[in-house]
Amino acid sequence: MFRSLRTVQQFNCNLQTLQKLSVNSKLFISTSRMASSDYRIERDTFGELKVPADKYYGAQTVRSTMNFKIGGPSERMPIQVIKAFGVLKKAAAEVNKEYGLNPKIADAIIQAADEVSAGKLDDHFPLVVWQTGSGTQTNMNVNEVISNRAIEILGGKLGSKEPVHPNDHVNKSQSSNDTFPTAMHIAAATEVHQVLLPGLQTLHDALAAKAEEFKDIIKIGRTHTQDAVPLSLGQEFSGYVQQVKYSIERVKAAMPRVYELAAGGTAVGTGLNTRIGFAEKVASTVASLTHLPFVTAPNKFEALAAHDALVELSGALNTVAVSMMKIANDIRFLGSGPRSGLGELILPENEPGSSIMPGKVNPTQCEAMTMVAAQVMGNHVAVTVGGSNGHFELNVFKPMIIKNVLNSAQLLGDASVSFTSNCVVGIQANTERINKLMSESLMLVTALNPHIGYDKAATIAKTAHKRGSTLKAVAMELGYLTEEQFDQWVKPSDMLGPK
Amino acid sequence: MFRSLRTVQQFNCNLQTLQKLSVNSKLFISTSRMASSDYRIERDTFGELKVPADKYYGAQTVRSTMNFKIGGPSERMPIQVIKAFGVLKKAAAEVNKEYGLNPKIADAIIQAADEVSAGKLDDHFPLVVWQTGSGTQTNMNVNEVISNRAIEILGGKLGSKEPVHPNDHVNKSQSSNDTFPTAMHIAAATEVHQVLLPGLQTLHDALAAKAEEFKDIIKIGRTHTQDAVPLSLGQEFSGYVQQVKYSIERVKAAMPRVYELAAGGTAVGTGLNTRIGFAEKVASTVASLTHLPFVTAPNKFEALAAHDALVELSGALNTVAVSMMKIANDIRFLGSGPRSGLGELILPENEPGSSIMPGKVNPTQCEAMTMVAAQVMGNHVAVTVGGSNGHFELNVFKPMIIKNVLNSAQLLGDASVSFTSNCVVGIQANTERINKLMSESLMLVTALNPHIGYDKAATIAKTAHKRGSTLKAVAMELGYLTEEQFDQWVKPSDMLGPK
Amino acid sequence: MFRSLRTVQQFNCNLQTLQKLSVNSKLFISTSRMASSDYRIERDTFGELKVPADKYYGAQTVRSTMNFKIGGPSERMPIQVIKAFGVLKKAAAEVNKEYGLNPKIADAIIQAADEVSAGKLDDHFPLVVWQTGSGTQTNMNVNEVISNRAIEILGGKLGSKEPVHPNDHVNKSQSSNDTFPTAMHIAAATEVHQVLLPGLQTLHDALAAKAEEFKDIIKIGRTHTQDAVPLSLGQEFSGYVQQVKYSIERVKAAMPRVYELAAGGTAVGTGLNTRIGFAEKVASTVASLTHLPFVTAPNKFEALAAHDALVELSGALNTVAVSMMKIANDIRFLGSGPRSGLGELILPENEPGSSIMPGKVNPTQCEAMTMVAAQVMGNHVAVTVGGSNGHFELNVFKPMIIKNVLNSAQLLGDASVSFTSNCVVGIQANTERINKLMSESLMLVTALNPHIGYDKAATIAKTAHKRGSTLKAVAMELGYLTEEQFDQWVKPSDMLGPK
Amino acid sequence: MFRSLRTVQQFNCNLQTLQKLSVNSKLFISTSRMASSDYRIERDTFGELKVPADKYYGAQTVRSTMNFKIGGPSERMPIQVIKAFGVLKKAAAEVNKEYGLNPKIADAIIQAADEVSAGKLDDHFPLVVWQTGSGTQTNMNVNEVISNRAIEILGGKLGSKEPVHPNDHVNKSQSSNDTFPTAMHIAAATEVHQVLLPGLQTLHDALAAKAEEFKDIIKIGRTHTQDAVPLSLGQEFSGYVQQVKYSIERVKAAMPRVYELAAGGTAVGTGLNTRIGFAEKVASTVASLTHLPFVTAPNKFEALAAHDALVELSGALNTVAVSMMKIANDIRFLGSGPRSGLGELILPENEPGSSIMPGKVNPTQCEAMTMVAAQVMGNHVAVTVGGSNGHFELNVFKPMIIKNVLNSAQLLGDASVSFTSNCVVGIQANTERINKLMSESLMLVTALNPHIGYDKAATIAKTAHKRGSTLKAVAMELGYLTEEQFDQWVKPSDMLGPK
Repeated sequence: MFRSLRTVQQFNCNLQTLQKLSVNSKLFISTSRMASSDYRIERDTFGELKVPADKYYGAQTVRSTMNFKIGGPSERMPIQVIKAFGVLKKAAAEVNKEYGLNPKIADAIIQAADEVSAGKLDDHFPLVVWQTGSGTQTNMNVNEVISNRAIEILGGKLGSKEPVHPNDHVNKSQSSNDTFPTAMHIAAATEVHQVLLPGLQTLHDALAAKAEEFKDIIKIGRTHTQDAVPLSLGQEFSGYVQQVKYSIERVKAAMPRVYELAAGGTAVGTGLNTRIGFAEKVASTVASLTHLPFVTAPNKFEALAAHDALVELSGALNTVAVSMMKIANDIRFLGSGPRSGLGELILPENEPGSSIMPGKVNPTQCEAMTMVAAQVMGNHVAVTVGGSNGHFELNVFKPMIIKNVLNSAQLLGDASVSFTSNCVVGIQANTERINKLMSESLMLVTALNPHIGYDKAATIAKTAHKRGSTLKAVAMELGYLTEEQFDQWVKPSDMLGPK
Repeated sequence: MFRSLRTVQQFNCNLQTLQKLSVNSKLFISTSRMASSDYRIERDTFGELKVPADKYYGAQTVRSTMNFKIGGPSERMPIQVIKAFGVLKKAAAEVNKEYGLNPKIADAIIQAADEVSAGKLDDHFPLVVWQTGSGTQTNMNVNEVISNRAIEILGGKLGSKEPVHPNDHVNKSQSSNDTFPTAMHIAAATEVHQVLLPGLQTLHDALAAKAEEFKDIIKIGRTHTQDAVPLSLGQEFSGYVQQVKYSIERVKAAMPRVYELAAGGTAVGTGLNTRIGFAEKVASTVASLTHLPFVTAPNKFEALAAHDALVELSGALNTVAVSMMKIANDIRFLGSGPRSGLGELILPENEPGSSIMPGKVNPTQCEAMTMVAAQVMGNHVAVTVGGSNGHFELNVFKPMIIKNVLNSAQLLGDASVSFTSNCVVGIQANTERINKLMSESLMLVTALNPHIGYDKAATIAKTAHKRGSTLKAVAMELGYLTEEQFDQWVKPSDMLGPK
Repeated sequence: MFRSLRTVQQFNCNLQTLQKLSVNSKLFISTSRMASSDYRIERDTFGELKVPADKYYGAQTVRSTMNFKIGGPSERMPIQVIKAFGVLKKAAAEVNKEYGLNPKIADAIIQAADEVSAGKLDDHFPLVVWQTGSGTQTNMNVNEVISNRAIEILGGKLGSKEPVHPNDHVNKSQSSNDTFPTAMHIAAATEVHQVLLPGLQTLHDALAAKAEEFKDIIKIGRTHTQDAVPLSLGQEFSGYVQQVKYSIERVKAAMPRVYELAAGGTAVGTGLNTRIGFAEKVASTVASLTHLPFVTAPNKFEALAAHDALVELSGALNTVAVSMMKIANDIRFLGSGPRSGLGELILPENEPGSSIMPGKVNPTQCEAMTMVAAQVMGNHVAVTVGGSNGHFELNVFKPMIIKNVLNSAQLLGDASVSFTSNCVVGIQANTERINKLMSESLMLVTALNPHIGYDKAATIAKTAHKRGSTLKAVAMELGYLTEEQFDQWVKPSDMLGPK
Repeated sequence: MFRSLRTVQQFNCNLQTLQKLSVNSKLFISTSRMASSDYRIERDTFGELKVPADKYYGAQTVRSTMNFKIGGPSERMPIQVIKAFGVLKKAAAEVNKEYGLNPKIADAIIQAADEVSAGKLDDHFPLVVWQTGSGTQTNMNVNEVISNRAIEILGGKLGSKEPVHPNDHVNKSQSSNDTFPTAMHIAAATEVHQVLLPGLQTLHDALAAKAEEFKDIIKIGRTHTQDAVPLSLGQEFSGYVQQVKYSIERVKAAMPRVYELAAGGTAVGTGLNTRIGFAEKVASTVASLTHLPFVTAPNKFEALAAHDALVELSGALNTVAVSMMKIANDIRFLGSGPRSGLGELILPENEPGSSIMPGKVNPTQCEAMTMVAAQVMGNHVAVTVGGSNGHFELNVFKPMIIKNVLNSAQLLGDASVSFTSNCVVGIQANTERINKLMSESLMLVTALNPHIGYDKAATIAKTAHKRGSTLKAVAMELGYLTEEQFDQWVKPSDMLGPK
């Protein structure tokens, strides 16, 4: 239910992305052959610039598109950050209103901010991640869009900065330096709650169902990739379940510090140009808007100058990726074959596997998951490097950091769902093969240790291996125990737990 | 000139991306409420599927969009890979024609492949990176698009696989397992030559011009971030020039193994179902189409099972990123201020720096560059992890690997150009401040070592530091040398090189 | 007090390391020219081997030294792991005794194990990290040493395996596969509690004292490395305090899963050949021996097959490293000079800084700390790669993983203490310079925003910058406000918080 | 022959390490209860210090041991760096003599430096890596040891600095800032040539011999870990051979920039206090002493301020690690079993594999190799982070960088030899199993593509899979071809190459 809601949202998001991009393409064209009716003039403290007439953004946004031609459309500031800004600007306007901001202005800002967070204005945010490291230009992009939209709502003229000024009203009591980190935390927490945790829970539940389903299937264990003593297939899967359970716990354990918001610190953390109480009120407003337990950061200097909280979250995602790599690797190897692999699992066949080998089926969901895991490990290093390179009152790797954290969270969440639906739920045990492998295993000899000692047991196993014989035959021959004892002691079903 | 051409291409690419996305959005819609006239039925070995009527792709592509809902539009297979496939499929068709493929079919494939590499069919490639790890589905996407487009050219019916079959004709003598790595190498080499190397050369030349411009400005050196003996600002910049020069050399040094193509190895490297000479002819055809020195890989088993060549290239990009981080960090610190920093350089002012601090200007280009550097370091770890996890005859982290390599190459190339145009070329020396700092430096005392020895020189410097006095005054007072000697020996302009 | 105790222990450890190495050198010699009296014959299931007469280890240990000549003495299994094994083997013997192991044997094992954990037998553990990935050979090394020492205690003959057998008695109810991960967790938790957390606390307290000491010193803030609005030096340091406080919290947050012990899982996690209750009793015995809250792992399959808990801990250490890099970088830049840097802090002078520049003093403690931080980030990637590559019932990167985790914990802990004692506690504020920089700053103009608006404030700042003039002079000239207003509104001491 | 020489050297090195450590332990003791006869007084510019009487080092070395208690003995500056310093100091003395240094002093320095590079004075170098980031203290340690030893040779009094001064004579025309990077490059190049490249060549040759030995054994291929078309076991191994061949090429490709020496740049790269020609002469002297093609760095500013050359080399080592991970993973999986794995290879049994499962044998050499690979990947990130964080005229992550590069080179070299001797050379093909798996494979159907088309071939394979039947039986039944055709077309021996 939750997921299906999300899918709809995603779909909307996709459509809006498309609209945004479509309009952008016009923008690019217009810069060279723009008719006077197609643009308006806006100005910032650096001078005047032509702005597309149908866009709410202003001069600073246009200036950024001119100065940062790095990476193209796929490198846009993640839309989750823009939406988080919508939440924040609304919360700030509400608090500013409480502190005396003209209610008409405040309400117009709130309405415009709502549109931003609802994704209605996505095509007015063309900036890429590779801009100023504080995200200032995206904050200004948001200020410009909201002020112009609010001006429009109030019947004013776009670009006039009247009656709603992007800095003096929309950005009131704020700085890029505290708003961008606030938006980072809102976006990260939201992605974690809407995409990552539900995805992990889905995977957890499916694996747990399999562990239950497979609980009576006894199979050979493998350590060092080599034959070992038996366990049940359900026990094997229970290890995966535990990994995913702990994945969820790890992510949650990182959240308390992500819930801390920098808002109210303004330019350097002191809170200059804010009012006492502003920080606390903004945080609690954001909390009530998002239904997430945001609080104001106890130390704003740390909240601007460092992004340790997101490095920590990225570390949790890295650990999740490590778990996913293990689980997906196991499943593809256990499902390898159909005739020349381990062949204990039968994985769902989802698509033709090969453009040249007819009839081939591949563990493609495992592959997508392990590729995601590798990506998340890489993203984590990017976040680590960025997080470690802050200087003085401000870390200026902010857009890069949040891009990677969001990417990791989304990929892990999405891949968990895809892996679950298209692979895990359809896994079948190849019981015939499992039984065959288990019964032939030499490592069942381990059950004799407590009875005849390690050294004699080793002699039995080694002799059987050399001769291609069975443990029992060799054990009889060597006279270490009776047939009756062998049958009593070497029972796989008795080897699944302590006695 | 080269750059401007490229910009136009990029722009086209952007437009096509938009069209692609627009159509996609229809696709998404159509899956729920698709009228019979909006789609056709295609089938693969898994059964039938509805395909949007206006798309050239077929069942396997649609199946992939259903099975891999991971990451959304921004996670598409890089368009450079698609274009590289266009080149490869054309080359293969030419060689197949030579080996007896019906010329009419071959020519239609060639024409369709040309359209793919020209970017005319970009909106027919909707698949994401997070699919099968061999890139099979993208290879099939390409096969489907080219076969359907060729069918159309030849007057046939889309989806009929007649007279051009995606596997039997377009994929003739090929496998995903050799074509995808071939496309990876073509795409990487092309990005390196069209974006990365020109970008680095641009940066190199601009830094070299600055090194020349600044060659007579003597300034204080800094080691351990602390005051040290002088050098010229030109010498300081010459170090950056050398780093970029070597960046170019490093990337070039990695290319020989990137020029090796897997094509002709087919499914496992043996070349099953190809003809003797096919591999060599395809490589030389690709070489002549791209004007890059591609050759057939001497060992196809390695070329499919490992992507060491791209890990190596990524390692070169990682080293470039390390150089860029150093250069951009230096420039932002040397340009720090305006009044409370080092202030030796004056960086161009490109935009308002702060949403709260009026008049603030920031080293934003340095920030974009250092964020790119961090990203490239992260991408490199993702590539390393993926590269190390191949098994047996095939590495199945292919799409993830090429995504990261292309991203790193593009970001470094683009950021180099942006950094050059918007920062480096406009850097000015603040000679007044440089002179002031240099003349006050205690480390000029080092010039006395050969004359009075290290220990006495240390005493002079330490005394001057404690008293806030000048070296000369203290030296006189201590009587270690005469004023004449001091003036003769402690001349910054004589301290810029060996004697 | 705690630290000084630890230093003594370390010192003992160093001495024992030396003795161990000394004896080893004899071993190496003896393999070529060993007189019959210098060795005894021991055997394992692979045959007989000469073992140095004065060593407690046996055939399997010798065999490992022959098969793994990788990296030399500096690559030894960390001694913390050996000591942790001593604790574990003691606990297992106590529990085995409870379950019926001959008390004489059990007590001898306990006594020998105590000697191992006390570091008295360090020179009997010559194996390197680069051995079998399960650490089996180190477990056997421990079993051999304890059994031989116990044999000696009981008056038996070394190498006879009578009356104490390394596998049947010392390793009773155990496998390498559960003991090695148990020792990993004991060692990691101990290092965290004995070295890392005390080190971080020391640093935290010293920084907190400085934050208090500097609370009334108003200085210029720096964002983007550029001049920004003021804050107090105490506020700036409070950010570092917060980072270290959270470092401690992060490490602690990772510990619950580190406290989970694999013991009782034996070979594949099922607990074959153990007794019901064994796992729980061993964990609680270890807990009481170490005074740390160890518990038995709820799922032994996960505890053997994955080391996510240590990847998670390593992630916490990585975040700590990120914090340390930031703090140490800030301090060295703020202390840069003495005449041409920022010069706001005066760092303690600990040693001559340069072999060529007399009188030079460098921020060497910052350098050691940042090098440690880089190492920890690298170690974390090694741990991540190792953690992700487990297969089936066993991860076989165990020795590598624990080596890196222990190295990171120790380096961060030691460096924190060194950085504190030799740098932080001696930091002085250069108030004269701080005042000068602050009073000249153009960014004080920000205080005018609420009064005259962002745009006018920007004009004042930009004009003052261009003319090299003061804010006040320009403000008067432009007529935006009165002198009285300026003096009232632009007060640095009023700019340190919200109003 | 080369290897055996090296082994002897290593052995010597080990012994010397032990002696060094033994003496150190005395040092530690002596600091607390040092009798007047046990020490002498030395002084540096910071004052006087007690130095152990039997040590050649002086005050600055002692001061470093007091200020940097980080990590303990295993964190010592790698001995390879110390030996490289011996080479450099000798070369510098020879050139200084040519430029007029008193020949008696020069010759004594040369003799002492020879002893350092021969490893005779190893126990006089107690400093750890975690010191000043320029390695100044190790350079001073070397200067002190050589000057005192030279003083002794000339009959002077230790600690008197007469007639050989550590700075004025041993360090003449040098700075830590150019000598330490020079020693880094000498050490890295030497390790590469003495350990890494011979190790890789050994592995290459052993794999090549296996590729030849196995060239006629036809086996099933595996892609996506699933059954694929056949290849020969020799072909499979040829891929590994190619990876190692390229590993060697990659390392060699990185060396040209490692051969560039910073010597002659002195403090900031200008060459202050050197003579024209000094740099070139030192480089050529080092080249003739080491028989490696060292040259003077063309730009000394880059050579001091950046360590891109070592980041690049580390990148090459990272790629080697990626190759090693692949090869070792394949071999352990192909050798998995003995009864429930893939079982195509029989790996040498080197030691008992399990402390609980008698008779178990594990691929321990593969495990050591893959652990080494993970470590090298981690080391590479540490080097990358350190390399990117240089500032202005000096990178101060030097000791950390060289530690990691040397560690990676040594581990890869040593592990290659161990893996070769203890695993690769003893690998046997399990031809019975290989034949069985190959003959049952459904993927042989691929050979029918050119004859009956992909779709029909797929139908055959899928039907056979579903029924558990053979390809031939199904093909006959479906009537797609005659038995004769099947036998002619589906011949594994014809499937190993193009036609």
